[in-house]
Amino acid sequence: MRTALCDRLGIEHPIIGFTPSEHVAAAISRAGGLGVLGCVRFNDADELDAVLDWMDENTGGRPYGVDVVMPSTVPAEAADVDLEAMIPDEHREFVRRTLTSLGVPELPDDAAKGDAVLGWLHSVARSHVDVALKHPVKLIANALGSPPPDVIGRAHEHGVLVAALAGKAEHARRHVDKGVDIVVAQGHEAGGHTGEIATMVLVPEIVDAVGEEVPVLAAGGIGSGRQVAAALALGASGAWMGSYWLATKEYTMTLGESAMQRALLAADSSDTVRTRIYTGKPARLLKTRWTDAWSEQDAPSPLPMPLQNILVSEAHQRIMRSDDPEVVSMPVGQIVGRMNAVRDVDEVMRDLLREAGETFTRLDGIR
Amino acid sequence: MRTALCDRLGIEHPIIGFTPSEHVAAAISRAGGLGVLGCVRFNDADELDAVLDWMDENTGGRPYGVDVVMPSTVPAEAADVDLEAMIPDEHREFVRRTLTSLGVPELPDDAAKGDAVLGWLHSVARSHVDVALKHPVKLIANALGSPPPDVIGRAHEHGVLVAALAGKAEHARRHVDKGVDIVVAQGHEAGGHTGEIATMVLVPEIVDAVGEEVPVLAAGGIGSGRQVAAALALGASGAWMGSYWLATKEYTMTLGESAMQRALLAADSSDTVRTRIYTGKPARLLKTRWTDAWSEQDAPSPLPMPLQNILVSEAHQRIMRSDDPEVVSMPVGQIVGRMNAVRDVDEVMRDLLREAGETFTRLDGIR
Repeated sequence: MRTALCDRLGIEHPIIGFTPSEHVAAAISRAGGLGVLGCVRFNDADELDAVLDWMDENTGGRPYGVDVVMPSTVPAEAADVDLEAMIPDEHREFVRRTLTSLGVPELPDDAAKGDAVLGWLHSVARSHVDVALKHPVKLIANALGSPPPDVIGRAHEHGVLVAALAGKAEHARRHVDKGVDIVVAQGHEAGGHTGEIATMVLVPEIVDAVGEEVPVLAAGGIGSGRQVAAALALGASGAWMGSYWLATKEYTMTLGESAMQRALLAADSSDTVRTRIYTGKPARLLKTRWTDAWSEQDAPSPLPMPLQNILVSEAHQRIMRSDDPEVVSMPVGQIVGRMNAVRDVDEVMRDLLREAGETFTRLDGIR
Repeated sequence: MRTALCDRLGIEHPIIGFTPSEHVAAAISRAGGLGVLGCVRFNDADELDAVLDWMDENTGGRPYGVDVVMPSTVPAEAADVDLEAMIPDEHREFVRRTLTSLGVPELPDDAAKGDAVLGWLHSVARSHVDVALKHPVKLIANALGSPPPDVIGRAHEHGVLVAALAGKAEHARRHVDKGVDIVVAQGHEAGGHTGEIATMVLVPEIVDAVGEEVPVLAAGGIGSGRQVAAALALGASGAWMGSYWLATKEYTMTLGESAMQRALLAADSSDTVRTRIYTGKPARLLKTRWTDAWSEQDAPSPLPMPLQNILVSEAHQRIMRSDDPEVVSMPVGQIVGRMNAVRDVDEVMRDLLREAGETFTRLDGIR
């Protein structure tokens, strides 16, 4: 498989892999796709800098990208402490009560409780961009749409392409008008932030809206070669895959073996839920006792971004430490039903390409 | 395009078109697909019989099918009057109040108010099957899953294939175990009754579960040749399309020009909602002031099938007569965003085939 996008990005296969793990990202790039490292977990720009140094040494000279989380409209951002003050007691109390009833232990005294994930803050996302542009990144993707114009401008000055996620054709149109180079059409079935329109409908719609100007990637529901081939049939120039890499050995290398990974392996495609509890915007998560608790009658409505992120930040730390497969908080798409074994990134990539090839051969017989 | 399904059904193209209009169904069959006539609108079996006589004369000897609505578990069915008594006053009052506030006029005195749609009743659906088996139908599809064993048995005795819709792989498995011949994998984005799992994820899942035993049709989000090609790439043996035929001239021939059709032409892919208000089971409808009213805080929860059908039956008659594009009650999928002009069935079919062919050629260039 080789689309125009491959030449544009300097990659062999039109498979773009989003992942919070540098081990996964580097392995995807080494396997001929484009690994895109999610930056939101880095509160400290220096830490990201060090990880990108590692990427530079471990991608074998292949291209890679980064993914930041930057709302297109810059929020009026107060200092950390003021944002904390905006969180209602009712919400804090609900989180406390819920964690207790789910049997999630408190953090030990020596845990760094201040380690809330700050990557959702605009200033922190900007520091990610600053650091990334010091490295030979090929792509900066923004999970929340068009980045601000100066960010797009600076990326272009560095010869870096800018990608933006879109859940509607009108969003894609806006991104391209603002200078975005690649649109990721993220369907309803995708993990993380996602809209209402399913990949099957969304991809051709976005291709019809902007496909003559920029390449469109299909995201949501892709974890097999058949689905990659379907994405290309819909008019996409490639597949953007996120969830599927969570079930890889390389993911475990960065983020450890965990109840989360075991929960993902056990889940089927019905075991996800689209909810605002993770960030304040609708995002698809694994359905667990934690997401169930938020859909009970006594649960408060989630707060807007970034307050919800801050509200649940310590809860996420506690949940992660408790290592209980029934109380996981993890974005994942409906493709989780196809994630049934932990494999190497390289093996995943070879299977995708092999099955896509078989699909094209099968289509030859019926076209 | 020619799959094994084409030989099985005796059709030229693997396009199966579900429609409540005999004019559309006959035109689809004449164009080389399989027209499947929805029977739920026929309260009177004799009326269906007459329409199938018409089909026999107007399909040019090509195969066609029928679609019934038969819950797999036979409900304890009381006489019409007892079902009416099971509907709470609160619900009747809400419907009355809502129609008034939406400006939907009462029925004129001479209108046959008793003409509730009874096709949702098991006994009526059975009468549809009885009538259909007197005609040379090729397929009986059931919108609610496996029909009862005796219905499957009788269909097979008549050499008629049985298809059943499935929104989960486990449902598909159950259908095939009961003797169903064709599974329709109906994704979340589809119109009418639909589950949570999107077509992109659902089709390969159902193909993996039962595809070695029976053909699987992809349903949900299909209204272009790219989407037909994607469905085949996912492993489907053909496309099951319902919504798209609502924007055809032949549909208007059966059911008249209407505000409904104008509303569908104006809608985009975000203008649908999945709700239980149409039948008691989750179904995707056009989003209008009617569906909005049911999601207000003061709205009661929809009743179970068939009570909800009976509750809204007269409302549907009134809404249809009022001919207001803002107060339509109509099942339609997210593909409504691609329904922007009223065309002949034949032209729609030719476009689907042409674009699918172009898609295969395009894929040749990138595979």
